[in-house]
Amino acid sequence: MNNPKISMALAVVLAAAWSIPAWSQARPEVLVKQRQGAMVLQGKYFYPSRAMAQGKTAYDASVVGRNVTYLDSLARMPWDGFTPATKDIKTQSTPAVFSETAKWKESQDRFQTEVTRLTELTRKGDEAAIKAQILAVDKSCGGCHETFRERQ
Amino acid sequence: MNNPKISMALAVVLAAAWSIPAWSQARPEVLVKQRQGAMVLQGKYFYPSRAMAQGKTAYDASVVGRNVTYLDSLARMPWDGFTPATKDIKTQSTPAVFSETAKWKESQDRFQTEVTRLTELTRKGDEAAIKAQILAVDKSCGGCHETFRERQ
Repeated sequence: MNNPKISMALAVVLAAAWSIPAWSQARPEVLVKQRQGAMVLQGKYFYPSRAMAQGKTAYDASVVGRNVTYLDSLARMPWDGFTPATKDIKTQSTPAVFSETAKWKESQDRFQTEVTRLTELTRKGDEAAIKAQILAVDKSCGGCHETFRERQ
Repeated sequence: MNNPKISMALAVVLAAAWSIPAWSQARPEVLVKQRQGAMVLQGKYFYPSRAMAQGKTAYDASVVGRNVTYLDSLARMPWDGFTPATKDIKTQSTPAVFSETAKWKESQDRFQTEVTRLTELTRKGDEAAIKAQILAVDKSCGGCHETFRERQ
C-alpha cells in the first residue's frame, strides 16, 4: 500500500462496499487502539439495549433508537484494523482471526446483517420485534467471540 | 443514579437532546476507555479527510462521505464519559475539563456544530466548500485541545 496510485485506486473500488481502510499508513499499535475503541463503543451502545430486551431495565424507544444509530456505524469500524501487521500484538483476539479468515469474515457479515435488520426495525417501532432483534444481534456477537476472542 | 425510576425518568428527559449517558452504571475506568475509544476513532475517520483538504492526498468524495457519516456519530460519543468520577484517572485530559465546565461544553458544541455543517456540505457535494469545512472542523479540534488536552 506504499504506491499512492494503487492505494487510491483500491480505495475507490472498496469504497463502494464502505469497507475501505480509513488510514492505510497507521502503525499496527494505532490500528489495535482503533479497533479496540470500536469494540468498546459497541458495548457502550449495545449493552443498555440488551438489558432492555432481557427485561432487566425498562424499555426506552428513544435510547434504543439513538444507540442503534450509533451501533450501525460502529459495527463497520473494527474490521480493517485486523491487518496481518497487528498479528503479534497481544490482545484479546485469538490467532483464529488470522488463520480462519473465511469464518472470520462470515462472522463480521452476520453481525453487520443483524445490526442492519435492527436499524430497520427501530424505524418501524414494533417493540417486540425490536427486542427480539436485539437478542439476535447479541447472539451474533457471542457467536463471533466464541472463536475469535479469548475466553474471559 | 442508583434509583432506577429516577434514572429512567432522567434518561427520558435527556434523550431528546441525544446526550443521555448510554450506561450510567459504567465504572470510571470503563468510561475513560469508552471516551478514549471515541477520540481515537474521531482521528481514524478525520485525519484522511484533513490530508485531502490540505492537498496532501488526492480528494476522494466517497471516502470523505463515508468518514463524515461516521464522524457525525463519533462527535457525539465522548462527552458523557467525562464524569466527575473519572477526575483522578490519569489521562491526556487537563484538569480544566472539570473546572472550566462552561468553556468545555462550549468547545464540544462548537465541534459538533462544525461537524454537522460538514455533514450537510458532503450531501451537497461542492468539493471546495467541503474542504474548507474540513479545515473548520480541524480548527475546532485544535481550539478544544488547546485548553483541555495536555500538550503532546
